[in-house]
Amino acid sequence: MSTTMQPSSGLEDVIAGSSGICYIDGDKGILAYRGIDIHDLADNTTFEEVTYLLWFGKLPTRAELQEFNLWLVRERKLDAQIISLIRQAPKHALPMDVLRSIVSSLSLFDPEERANDAGANLRKSIRLTSQLAMIVANYDRIRKGKPLIEPDRSLSHAGNFLLMLNGELPSETATRAFDIALILHADHEWNASTFAARVTAATLSDMHSAITSAIGALKGPLHGGANEAVFGILEDIDRNGADPVEYIKGMLAQKAKVPGFGHRVYTTEDPRATHLRQMSRDLGYSSGQTKWFDYSRRIEEFINAEKKLNANVDFYSASTYHTLGIDVDLFTPIFAVSRVAGWTAHVMEQLADNRLIRPRAEYIGPVYPNKYTPIEQRGELVA
Amino acid sequence: MSTTMQPSSGLEDVIAGSSGICYIDGDKGILAYRGIDIHDLADNTTFEEVTYLLWFGKLPTRAELQEFNLWLVRERKLDAQIISLIRQAPKHALPMDVLRSIVSSLSLFDPEERANDAGANLRKSIRLTSQLAMIVANYDRIRKGKPLIEPDRSLSHAGNFLLMLNGELPSETATRAFDIALILHADHEWNASTFAARVTAATLSDMHSAITSAIGALKGPLHGGANEAVFGILEDIDRNGADPVEYIKGMLAQKAKVPGFGHRVYTTEDPRATHLRQMSRDLGYSSGQTKWFDYSRRIEEFINAEKKLNANVDFYSASTYHTLGIDVDLFTPIFAVSRVAGWTAHVMEQLADNRLIRPRAEYIGPVYPNKYTPIEQRGELVA
Repeated sequence: MSTTMQPSSGLEDVIAGSSGICYIDGDKGILAYRGIDIHDLADNTTFEEVTYLLWFGKLPTRAELQEFNLWLVRERKLDAQIISLIRQAPKHALPMDVLRSIVSSLSLFDPEERANDAGANLRKSIRLTSQLAMIVANYDRIRKGKPLIEPDRSLSHAGNFLLMLNGELPSETATRAFDIALILHADHEWNASTFAARVTAATLSDMHSAITSAIGALKGPLHGGANEAVFGILEDIDRNGADPVEYIKGMLAQKAKVPGFGHRVYTTEDPRATHLRQMSRDLGYSSGQTKWFDYSRRIEEFINAEKKLNANVDFYSASTYHTLGIDVDLFTPIFAVSRVAGWTAHVMEQLADNRLIRPRAEYIGPVYPNKYTPIEQRGELVA
Repeated sequence: MSTTMQPSSGLEDVIAGSSGICYIDGDKGILAYRGIDIHDLADNTTFEEVTYLLWFGKLPTRAELQEFNLWLVRERKLDAQIISLIRQAPKHALPMDVLRSIVSSLSLFDPEERANDAGANLRKSIRLTSQLAMIVANYDRIRKGKPLIEPDRSLSHAGNFLLMLNGELPSETATRAFDIALILHADHEWNASTFAARVTAATLSDMHSAITSAIGALKGPLHGGANEAVFGILEDIDRNGADPVEYIKGMLAQKAKVPGFGHRVYTTEDPRATHLRQMSRDLGYSSGQTKWFDYSRRIEEFINAEKKLNANVDFYSASTYHTLGIDVDLFTPIFAVSRVAGWTAHVMEQLADNRLIRPRAEYIGPVYPNKYTPIEQRGELVA
């Protein structure tokens, strides 16, 4: 075997394969699903249409969308065993750990557990998309000691989630805001969690294994976990009555990384941030509480000027989700509720033309052969 | 952003980073942990010594090994909640799905759930190494309706596993054979499951997320799942009284891939296969049942001659594990019982000098901008 390429730290700029799902031009700030600009999708479509687009490569006709929606709402139910498992999670558990464990356990009760063909994987994708939203909503109510809310099959995916989470019919504004957030987070090419899903799926494992890997990767603060970190800062500023800019100056003085800024792929503004900034502003004004947006805006202007870094998708999702009444430790689980549409699309694409994803490593350890020393001769000097 | 490299299918021969844990020369058939040849390790050491070597970069002195062993046996216990979760797995569930779900759930009860520093991750690695073996053994007894066996802290890791699995003190031969199998499977550079673990860990997620991803990836028949597929063939040959070579000829005639042969990295014999072939032969003769070895040997000779492919680690582990009295659907879980030593070593190495693993994809979808069409205009022709 000859390794023909030089090591690249974190596979930055390495093309790891081909994909027809997501187009990104990081220099121009362009994001598109199946070639359709994210701004057009956020302005005009629903999460259901976008999920269809990601999976089938085109936007649905009205009849197709109607049928697709039927598939999704038919799976708007959770096994009693799954709800029982959610109830067994200790109170102190981290929501992403619970979500990862419960999604992994879904496979134990899936009617097509042993199937890994295209049809079964489409049906698993439909189930997972419906189930993830319900798991997050049920989990939050269970940990708060609140009664569970039955799913409403007449509502949209976004509307039903907010209903099951909050126990009341959401306003049209809130539903549309959440729907747009779901659209914006639904896919992002070969980001770390999607890549983890593809690496897992490429051994011909199964859909639940792949999505479980993705949830584990999304949890990290260098990925989905960043939106929780952003709100932690906003909360800390608010609690201490601090000036946002002074607070961030303090962080930078301590060489801390300010979450929500910069992106591996974008050299200009993340197009999702543009939308989320607007949503954060609109929701702030309509709810009469603009402070979270105001803190965010001042931090953004300062970091733009000082560090030449742009806000990414995580920065304004923090204040947006908070204004929608969502607890900070659900921000990353909610990211998963959206991204499962993209993860499953990528797993299906991977399996349609599969090859094991198995790179090599540059060996930097003790030179071979490193002589074996029997245990009685392994003295301090050998160590 | 400029992508500087050409796409490589499955990252074959792409150097995805640096690592000092495992050295492989695929052309010479060399495998070494920390530079020490796998043959020396298999002939002279124990799984505990090898785990120490993988984690700390050197073989332990007698005092260090004694202390290390204490750490491991202190964690030779499972929470009652974990055992209860194993009991809740449906009878029809796939063992790797159960293992993945239970290992994910370990995080919910881990005393350092929220810590991701080097000390906590070493302690989590110790716990996971002890726990995985007990989970697999307990699970097998629970699904068979047998009483659980208490761990014995006076035994080696291999001996205790066989005791907890089979309910009787294993022979010295069986213990040593299993110990060698654990050593041979403990690490293999950036194989798919280890890579999945590193991709997950590199978002700064956590150890349990990383190991959960790895188990999901290992499940696939293009990776750890292959040893189960090999035994399925041996069993089918035996059940039908078929001639092994004729059976394989039949598979090849149907363009089926024969599992257990060929390897992404080795162009010559996999050095682990050399050991496992010997173990399969020895165990066969000492147990008085050589048929599984004989079938295997005839298949190997035929595939060597016909396809110029060599047996890999999975081929002889099948007959070896079977002769040790292990059920075929535990072969891959047992692979995980060993590989967790390597997975955790790689996660700790990744975090010691971390960078997000986030490649790019070559975009092959509809050209941007793919014009957005309102739903009422999406007719059949647009589709």
